[in-house]
Amino acid sequence: MQNDKIQIFDTTLRDGEQVPGCKLDTQQKLIIAERLDFLGVDIIEAGFPVSSPGDFTSVLEISKLVKNASVCGLTRAVKKDIEVAAEALKLAKKPRIHTGIGTSDSHIQYKFNASKDEVIKRAKEAVSHAKNFVDDVEFYAEDAGRTDNVFLAKVCEEVIKSGATVLNIPDTTGYCLPEEYGAKIKYLKENVEGIENVIISCHCHNDLGLATANSIAGAINGARQIECTINGIGERAGNTALEEVVMILKQHPYLNLQTDINTKLLYDTSIMVREKMGMPVQPNKAIVGANAFAHSSGIHQDGVIKNRETYEIINPADVGVNESAIVLTARSGRAALAYRAKKIGYELTKIQLDTAYKTFLQFADRQKEVIDEDIHQIMKQVNKISKIAIA
Amino acid sequence: MQNDKIQIFDTTLRDGEQVPGCKLDTQQKLIIAERLDFLGVDIIEAGFPVSSPGDFTSVLEISKLVKNASVCGLTRAVKKDIEVAAEALKLAKKPRIHTGIGTSDSHIQYKFNASKDEVIKRAKEAVSHAKNFVDDVEFYAEDAGRTDNVFLAKVCEEVIKSGATVLNIPDTTGYCLPEEYGAKIKYLKENVEGIENVIISCHCHNDLGLATANSIAGAINGARQIECTINGIGERAGNTALEEVVMILKQHPYLNLQTDINTKLLYDTSIMVREKMGMPVQPNKAIVGANAFAHSSGIHQDGVIKNRETYEIINPADVGVNESAIVLTARSGRAALAYRAKKIGYELTKIQLDTAYKTFLQFADRQKEVIDEDIHQIMKQVNKISKIAIA
Repeated sequence: MQNDKIQIFDTTLRDGEQVPGCKLDTQQKLIIAERLDFLGVDIIEAGFPVSSPGDFTSVLEISKLVKNASVCGLTRAVKKDIEVAAEALKLAKKPRIHTGIGTSDSHIQYKFNASKDEVIKRAKEAVSHAKNFVDDVEFYAEDAGRTDNVFLAKVCEEVIKSGATVLNIPDTTGYCLPEEYGAKIKYLKENVEGIENVIISCHCHNDLGLATANSIAGAINGARQIECTINGIGERAGNTALEEVVMILKQHPYLNLQTDINTKLLYDTSIMVREKMGMPVQPNKAIVGANAFAHSSGIHQDGVIKNRETYEIINPADVGVNESAIVLTARSGRAALAYRAKKIGYELTKIQLDTAYKTFLQFADRQKEVIDEDIHQIMKQVNKISKIAIA
Repeated sequence: MQNDKIQIFDTTLRDGEQVPGCKLDTQQKLIIAERLDFLGVDIIEAGFPVSSPGDFTSVLEISKLVKNASVCGLTRAVKKDIEVAAEALKLAKKPRIHTGIGTSDSHIQYKFNASKDEVIKRAKEAVSHAKNFVDDVEFYAEDAGRTDNVFLAKVCEEVIKSGATVLNIPDTTGYCLPEEYGAKIKYLKENVEGIENVIISCHCHNDLGLATANSIAGAINGARQIECTINGIGERAGNTALEEVVMILKQHPYLNLQTDINTKLLYDTSIMVREKMGMPVQPNKAIVGANAFAHSSGIHQDGVIKNRETYEIINPADVGVNESAIVLTARSGRAALAYRAKKIGYELTKIQLDTAYKTFLQFADRQKEVIDEDIHQIMKQVNKISKIAIA
């Protein structure tokens, strides 16, 4: 199997920003765009230029700023959208127009009240029109997740003929199971004429908690671009989390799929986005949550103290986190207490540790976490019974 | 394919509570346990009785309280652990002891410094000892995700002979990909003598964002129990989220896998757990996040207003959320503005809407969200130009 590159298409500033409470001004977007470029993403989707004057300006300014990544603007399959996007992108070093239309029965019937032939006609016209302005045109088949594969393949084939360079297959409602989404990509790979000349892209939503797994299933089955956001932000339950797909590929080298992301910048980038957008990340968020590398149970702490890899598959330093935290709670064991006590200067014998541990459990049953201050208290109490050596 | 029941094993009070900052007192645990019983979970893992006096008391009190679910206590493969757990569970209507030992090379070598034969011996002894106290004994093969399948099958076969009723196959470090985890379950299903008499359980961690997908892959390949927590809380990046696996099975009826969960209680249960544990849930959390059913982009709002199913696969009422929110931001279109304006009494003509929308975009480019108060302001400004009918 050849060693393959997965393009990372970041849509934090478009689909990620499309969220109640997340709106950024142009200045904030520029700071994030610069960081994304530095992080190593291949494409930055900078906005939806026709949607508002503010968004137009942001795409224009990001286009001027970004040095390495392609800059992409979203449009509907509407002439004016495409023209406005082209105008906003005109100063980008590598401009991309992202246009498309809904292809599922639900979208065709309820949203457009059109026929399937009409949808294909509009899709082709949009791609052709975009090609008048840029070489790189990505086409999205909205709600592809619920689109019949035979019709989807036909749409893909037709827009390739019109010049599309990337085919985005979005699971817009987050409905697909990984097997199903992977099979859809495989079907396209095997049944669309000209597919070898374009890149298939995964754009998954997390309504059922499966965005990451679906994107990986897509890549395993032939997709070579993943659309994602920092912290997985986005409308409803959000998009695929960039940090998750990147670390999955890194941790499973046998898949032979690489990205150009500098993973050591992931944690800082996550912090920047949560602060600028005012969108909190829960402590138990994979890779970038506050607890992602925190161990509090006795069994786990014991293992990690003996050898990090017993319970951690990722070295925290690889994503820019300083070190694994050993947090003391009622679930912690003697090894963790000894480890933390030693860090602040107490070297305990086995008997001293037994005594200290009993006192520790009383503290721990009363409070959520036992901190260094408490350990000093515990040592004072133990000291009455036996002299503790202070290293 | 037969219509199959998936048992929901909730470990919010054990693995979920095993988190920095999450510690609950016995009274809080009782309130959550009662709610879990009412929600319809099949097994409540109530704690790790030997770990602290507080945990012992909690398991004892939960055992007295719970009416329908089995109550389970965790132990290591250590005699004293098992005896203390049996004591804590003695008043449970359906007690279960959950015992086990690490089976991966990393665990055997670094954690126990033992041989493979020694691990099997200790596993069998633990299960046999637990059988002296209860009929229902679940065995966990810790770090099964990184355990060689042939050795894992041997361990499983041996503990079945010793009387285990449930085999828990944890992906302790959250390393597996769904295909790989599913294949592991399939391998056990096909290669372990006596497997047809026991239940295989999935216990997945979310370090790479794959816990939900792995659990579903396990169920599709023959597991009939999923271990999970409310809001996916747990050590590091947490456990499988109960609400996600339950809704995936409900939304994909062709899988023929059912749970007994009353999904209409999911949202309220999520709120209860986040409040009691002080563990926030991010807005873009699947199913139970504040934004899970909120639409702010113009394209999506337009679709949802025309027909909910265009962008939503889950009816919010099915998980106990009142209705889909149409949030007004710079990404919103005319349809959303008209919809929200109508809700507060303004019926607009097409021309009035065009005028109002221009003013709306000025508001929206300045602020994150446009609220009802702003709509009244916008209507006042528009009113100077054209008389608006107030319905």
